[in-house]
Amino acid sequence: MSKQETRDKILKAGAALVHVKGFNNTGIQEILTESGVPKGSFYFYFKNKEEFGLALIDHHRSIIGPKWIGFLRDPETPSPLARLKKLLRAFHERYEANGYSAGCPIGNLIQEMSDLSPAIRERLALVVDEVVGLLAETIAEAVELGELPRLLEPERTARFIFFGWEGALLAMKLEKSRAPLHDFEVMVFDVLFRGA
Amino acid sequence: MSKQETRDKILKAGAALVHVKGFNNTGIQEILTESGVPKGSFYFYFKNKEEFGLALIDHHRSIIGPKWIGFLRDPETPSPLARLKKLLRAFHERYEANGYSAGCPIGNLIQEMSDLSPAIRERLALVVDEVVGLLAETIAEAVELGELPRLLEPERTARFIFFGWEGALLAMKLEKSRAPLHDFEVMVFDVLFRGA
Repeated sequence: MSKQETRDKILKAGAALVHVKGFNNTGIQEILTESGVPKGSFYFYFKNKEEFGLALIDHHRSIIGPKWIGFLRDPETPSPLARLKKLLRAFHERYEANGYSAGCPIGNLIQEMSDLSPAIRERLALVVDEVVGLLAETIAEAVELGELPRLLEPERTARFIFFGWEGALLAMKLEKSRAPLHDFEVMVFDVLFRGA
Repeated sequence: MSKQETRDKILKAGAALVHVKGFNNTGIQEILTESGVPKGSFYFYFKNKEEFGLALIDHHRSIIGPKWIGFLRDPETPSPLARLKKLLRAFHERYEANGYSAGCPIGNLIQEMSDLSPAIRERLALVVDEVVGLLAETIAEAVELGELPRLLEPERTARFIFFGWEGALLAMKLEKSRAPLHDFEVMVFDVLFRGA
């Protein structure tokens, strides 16, 4: 296996552990054991745990970006609001399959690490800016097409929806049910979007 | 000092540490050192760290409940929406004083511990139900008085606002600015409430 392949293996195993247990609560040896990489070789791949954290965020970013783009710029679905709803529904399915646990890996790291590592905080902000940008683009298109009222400022509305969704994931983890995700959708699509 | 006083001292010091560093990332000895209690005496006050976590939640609950009640049932402010806005503004001030760090101790524990301890998860749900209940009562009163449209179902709207607020605190931790709290207020009061 090449150095790059082994590094990817560590990141994949690490991402799964950190997603459930948290960043500080996941030990380096645990990650190596889970990825089947010899003990003690961690520092051959990452300078320290913070560097591993930054690589972990890049790993998530490489998955999240194409996924959001796939849904929000889907040429098969002309309505921007229908594209947004499809994205949310895809998340509903995934969280249902996961027993409504773990939540969003980026949101979790924001909560846990924003005050503990400025480097990690800055890297997380990059990912958030990207997905909020995609959401804002979708909302602007919906406003342009008359699907949404002009009162909804795209960037502000996009941030409200992104972080509101992070909040809904907290509710989901707490209640262990799909209800908070459903309620969030109702509040956004049937109240915020319809009423505004 | 009585056993109860020493226990309270441990809880207060522990609450401050956990709020910044996280629950799993805060060591028992660290808490004892911070509270000036002799090393090794932790298990005299708490059966284990999970019991400490439950006591920590009760400690926060004893502060949060009266605070929310003070604002949301304030007899000096007749308008329910004005009472809600005052509560949010009080939080703005507090987070500004704290350099936009740490966030909500209850939201942090929901994120970190919901999947790791069913007992902690259930205790957290009690606190959330209480504050969401107070919010729902305030919203229902606003609907009754004609300050809010009937389209806003009080319980669902209250949960949306509570968890949306938790999301806004994530954004605040990430951006280290008041802007996300301000934007949240605009979206709730000037878009969701006005438009609905």
